[in-house]
Amino acid sequence: MRKRIDNPAAFIGINGEGYISFGSGQPDLPPPADIFKSLASKRLFKYGPIKGEPRLRAALAKEYPGAKQEDFAITNGASEALDLTFRAIRELHGKVKVLICRPYYYSYPPIVELAGLTPVYTELKEGRIDIEDFKKKVRGVKAVLINSPSNPTGRVEAIPTLKELEKITQKLGVYVISDEVYKDLIYERGNYLIKGPHVITVNSFSKTYSMCGLRIGYLWARDPKIVKQIVDIKVHTSMNTNTLAQEMALRAMSVPESFVEAQTKIWMGRRDFLYQGLTDLGFSLWKPEGAFYVLPKIKNSNRVVSELFYKHKVITYDGAWFGAPDRIRLSYALDVDKMKEGLSRIASYLKGKEKWLK
Amino acid sequence: MRKRIDNPAAFIGINGEGYISFGSGQPDLPPPADIFKSLASKRLFKYGPIKGEPRLRAALAKEYPGAKQEDFAITNGASEALDLTFRAIRELHGKVKVLICRPYYYSYPPIVELAGLTPVYTELKEGRIDIEDFKKKVRGVKAVLINSPSNPTGRVEAIPTLKELEKITQKLGVYVISDEVYKDLIYERGNYLIKGPHVITVNSFSKTYSMCGLRIGYLWARDPKIVKQIVDIKVHTSMNTNTLAQEMALRAMSVPESFVEAQTKIWMGRRDFLYQGLTDLGFSLWKPEGAFYVLPKIKNSNRVVSELFYKHKVITYDGAWFGAPDRIRLSYALDVDKMKEGLSRIASYLKGKEKWLK
Repeated sequence: MRKRIDNPAAFIGINGEGYISFGSGQPDLPPPADIFKSLASKRLFKYGPIKGEPRLRAALAKEYPGAKQEDFAITNGASEALDLTFRAIRELHGKVKVLICRPYYYSYPPIVELAGLTPVYTELKEGRIDIEDFKKKVRGVKAVLINSPSNPTGRVEAIPTLKELEKITQKLGVYVISDEVYKDLIYERGNYLIKGPHVITVNSFSKTYSMCGLRIGYLWARDPKIVKQIVDIKVHTSMNTNTLAQEMALRAMSVPESFVEAQTKIWMGRRDFLYQGLTDLGFSLWKPEGAFYVLPKIKNSNRVVSELFYKHKVITYDGAWFGAPDRIRLSYALDVDKMKEGLSRIASYLKGKEKWLK
Repeated sequence: MRKRIDNPAAFIGINGEGYISFGSGQPDLPPPADIFKSLASKRLFKYGPIKGEPRLRAALAKEYPGAKQEDFAITNGASEALDLTFRAIRELHGKVKVLICRPYYYSYPPIVELAGLTPVYTELKEGRIDIEDFKKKVRGVKAVLINSPSNPTGRVEAIPTLKELEKITQKLGVYVISDEVYKDLIYERGNYLIKGPHVITVNSFSKTYSMCGLRIGYLWARDPKIVKQIVDIKVHTSMNTNTLAQEMALRAMSVPESFVEAQTKIWMGRRDFLYQGLTDLGFSLWKPEGAFYVLPKIKNSNRVVSELFYKHKVITYDGAWFGAPDRIRLSYALDVDKMKEGLSRIASYLKGKEKWLK
């Protein structure tokens, strides 16, 4: 049978290799010379493969046992990885239900809904999955979305919980979307990679390499149909992820492990400082095991957040945005001196409001 | 009334200014020093405002008479600008219809459908809008999508047509999404900017500054409700557009106009070369007035595209992908020597197939 080109995506990213391309709609003239100095390779300014640069995907595949580079897609941050995954599930399976752990990262419900899917919820217990509740709620859904270490709870799932979750979802043929953007920020143990034929691992360079603004994330789907569907969507909705950022991500991956280890030490010190500081102020909160968030209890959380912002110039997030009313979320991604000043402002704000902490 | 923070998006991009931020989930540690040399400002590696860098939006607002910077959003290329616009229309108006000119850029129908909207079509006449057909088809739609200069026809709409289109759509209260990514590549006249309260102008730095791989585009909506809705979606689906690319786009805007003019001269020379070359081979085609595409007639277009690719290593696009069966699309974004070689391969392929050109 004659080979057939079904769509233009197959051509994108082919440069040279003996081909004459009348195909691609991109200028071959160089960009203005003075908008960049070092990363000045012309190649980086051309469209790239929708899936992402092969060298970057190859480097990622080496990091995950059993992974193949063609099962990765490089995305505009973990956000787009999630958005594309749910849009792909919508295209493949229609208007199905997605199980979300509550409290959740605030974008989860809207991302699921924007894709035309319906979120349902399992309630976390002390910031971690309650496997009994999970077992009940997983019936009838097509996908579950988990996030360990968790934003906003700062908790890390126990390995036996993750293994049980693997068993249940595999039996039911349910997708597991595992958002692991904080996997390099676990203080207690190494990361446990969820296994199974329907697992989609989502990750990012933002947190590990302090590259948030560059919006460079990725996904690894064990089921190639998902990656194909995602590429079929992304070719229309955003095309390749920024090529320069992909090059930078690749370079970041080759820094010595001590870079990440040194950071983790800093995070632990900050975690201890903030946990102690908030405890001393009378807050009740879970001790974070990963990521860089705490989620202490406080009544009137929206008022607290607003007043801290307008009256004390302190930014905190309302727990309600994360499905955790009567809590606020604080990140400790700032240095100890600033945290000290922030805690002192919170302390003066709290004067006379001590009963809100009960 | 007490000011109220309704969602975390309001905080994003606030750095310093006397605030203590426990809010933003981004590391404040520096990225690995050796992944970048010049563009090494720490600021560029942090999350930025979802709408885009204020300095870039301010520079853009100066380019468009009457524009305000808050009505712009910077996006992952024009693709994401379109995707977000249609998703916003879906959120604001439900499952409405969108009028698309055929032949169209191949992503238009899927972008509209992925947003949950329904495309309907008006047929172009000689590659340009047929205003009589347009008038009939515009009844009952909520938005029209136009593209002048057109990919794939290479045609530029006549100003009287655009003025009539303005009048009709304004009367009906229909959104006009005007994809103007080739506006700096018009050979016959300056760009005519569509006016009206429901106009959304979409543009990109890709084509003008040869920065396709960086995926940096934008939209300017006259109706602030659209921009607000777009930001409400983008905060979840991709967050800010790559900060480094935004900085580069800003620098690109300050290169002298002679940069763009010199490019346009090159494009005109290539256009003349390819138009003449294809005409000499017996093709029937429209002379491009803008962009860098031709869309000559040929029967069995998919077979032609496939055989040119596999047997002659020549890439062309099937017109059917653009809603133009029995045509192929050729870009002239390559130098004259390569075009010469390509034309000679096409000539040998066409031997004995001359009747396909009739």
